[in-house]
Amino acid sequence: MPVETIRWKNGKIRYVDQTQLPTRLKFVECGDIKRFWKAIRNLEVRGAPALGIAGALGVILGMQHSRAKNFRSFIKELGRVIRFLASSRPTARNLFWALERMEETAMENRSRPIGVIKEILLEEARRIIEEDKSACREMARHGASLVRKRDAILTHCNAGGLATADYGTALGVLFEAKKQGKRIKVYADETRPLLQGARLTAWELMHEGIDTTLICDNMAASLMAKGRIDKIFVGADRIASNGDAANKIGTYNIAVLARYHKIPFYVVAPASTFDFSLKTGKDIPIEERSAGEVRTVLGRIEIAPKNVKVYNPAFDVTPNELIAAIVTEKGIFRKPYGRSLRGVKGK
Amino acid sequence: MPVETIRWKNGKIRYVDQTQLPTRLKFVECGDIKRFWKAIRNLEVRGAPALGIAGALGVILGMQHSRAKNFRSFIKELGRVIRFLASSRPTARNLFWALERMEETAMENRSRPIGVIKEILLEEARRIIEEDKSACREMARHGASLVRKRDAILTHCNAGGLATADYGTALGVLFEAKKQGKRIKVYADETRPLLQGARLTAWELMHEGIDTTLICDNMAASLMAKGRIDKIFVGADRIASNGDAANKIGTYNIAVLARYHKIPFYVVAPASTFDFSLKTGKDIPIEERSAGEVRTVLGRIEIAPKNVKVYNPAFDVTPNELIAAIVTEKGIFRKPYGRSLRGVKGK
Repeated sequence: MPVETIRWKNGKIRYVDQTQLPTRLKFVECGDIKRFWKAIRNLEVRGAPALGIAGALGVILGMQHSRAKNFRSFIKELGRVIRFLASSRPTARNLFWALERMEETAMENRSRPIGVIKEILLEEARRIIEEDKSACREMARHGASLVRKRDAILTHCNAGGLATADYGTALGVLFEAKKQGKRIKVYADETRPLLQGARLTAWELMHEGIDTTLICDNMAASLMAKGRIDKIFVGADRIASNGDAANKIGTYNIAVLARYHKIPFYVVAPASTFDFSLKTGKDIPIEERSAGEVRTVLGRIEIAPKNVKVYNPAFDVTPNELIAAIVTEKGIFRKPYGRSLRGVKGK
Repeated sequence: MPVETIRWKNGKIRYVDQTQLPTRLKFVECGDIKRFWKAIRNLEVRGAPALGIAGALGVILGMQHSRAKNFRSFIKELGRVIRFLASSRPTARNLFWALERMEETAMENRSRPIGVIKEILLEEARRIIEEDKSACREMARHGASLVRKRDAILTHCNAGGLATADYGTALGVLFEAKKQGKRIKVYADETRPLLQGARLTAWELMHEGIDTTLICDNMAASLMAKGRIDKIFVGADRIASNGDAANKIGTYNIAVLARYHKIPFYVVAPASTFDFSLKTGKDIPIEERSAGEVRTVLGRIEIAPKNVKVYNPAFDVTPNELIAAIVTEKGIFRKPYGRSLRGVKGK
């Protein structure tokens, strides 16, 4: 059973503080939107689908005590809350997708009393959570059909239960394959700088009884050269209309290695991760994070000269040509993506 | 002026303890061969050419108090010392090269008194240091001819003064280019697990006033995709007859990325790194190190579940086809390496 990563509880957002894993499984109950913004910024809550849920619940948190007496002031206040939440992290599409959906829901119900709109928004947030859970199961089911009995699979960063409401995207596929009796072996990239692979993915995989081996990011090529990787599954933070996919820094690296070694590279993501307003991945905004993340390890030990310059993009973009297939809750999509991905668009 | 990484001083080996950098520049004077073996094992002394010197000085340390009264017992004792030192680390060719050279020197002087042989061995060790210094200068000179005025260069691990007697191999090229007035920009891979790039290379580059940017290993591909890397220079630990080159884990990764992005990838190493007894890189023994190096950062903080399995090869092998040129003290060698590298062989 996956951990319940994030949910609404008695007027607060209850979430797993992912910066504390794997040492501590700590739940936080947060009733303050500024504190919650920091939780997103600091990656206490992270992972594209989970950020969608964080956006939806953040709106509830920000609006529950609204004293607006008419829709006009309510929607103005809602706009401020949404812009504030949107400023936390720029890359994951799901955050903006959820914020837009909450705003649309309010607009559709503009003629109702404010109290009722608040209730409808909470229902909508809960619906987003439920939809994410069922999307996880569907992605897992579709993706598992790509996994063979004794596959050795490489994954990067964390696209598991901690990144979603439930089962995970890329890791959901692996959990499902395991459940189907496939004896897979999984290699997890540690994923510097914030080590989500070492801290979160290794923990989740072992929790589900999957044969797990941790490697440093620069060791994947050596495994591939030895024929020890059969497939690669990763998540995504934003996918453009043409299939170019932004994901955690280092993903593009693996995709290039996969091409050289002729290993299929799969992306697993729900429809909420797609941004059809963008033609290609070149238009995806990439978050650059602080130098301290690279100069230290988790802020706890210094590993470099104090004043050394740093380049620290949190994501990179994998061009569609390197992606063997994109797995969504609506099925498995293949090249040419420009055409096939239209199937993700419709409700 | 580079730091004097390792030398002989009053019956002891004086070296920089590289595990303490960049926080502390600590010199150790070691008079005990078992302690020195651990210093090699723990990477207090590291870097292929420096390991050659460590081997030669280790022989002096192990034999200086020998009470052997005839050559037969002397050479037997020497054999034990050499086997002991050789057991410290398996991959870097230079260590074995220096040990063999010391043994040959003893054999060539077998008819002399033991006291004289000891003096000759110390002279030979000092000659190895002097030759390494001059090889560094020559490699730097040849290699710098490949660097253009405003090149942005990526390097991996540490192939600098700390890895040699003097100036470095790959970094020596960059120091020389800087000295020639070329305004280069260097990106240093941090190089997990032991972070020699972050701790040592960044420190050395900044010390020489070179524009230095530190990145995590998985960020190099992102820079290449943006056209921000013009060339790659790395060192080597062992090079086979056909040009296949073993170097720090992650090097092969970069070589594949370089091929995909059409960026020239150069290896810089002295003749003492070549192993002409090996046809290809497949025969190079690759050291696997402890799981703790990956599960922790420098043994100081835990970053993964305690019992997670780990794959931790210290080196990987870059096939010759991915190497644009190999720079040695004897010049620049290009494909086909099987033929061209014969030029490295002769004295």
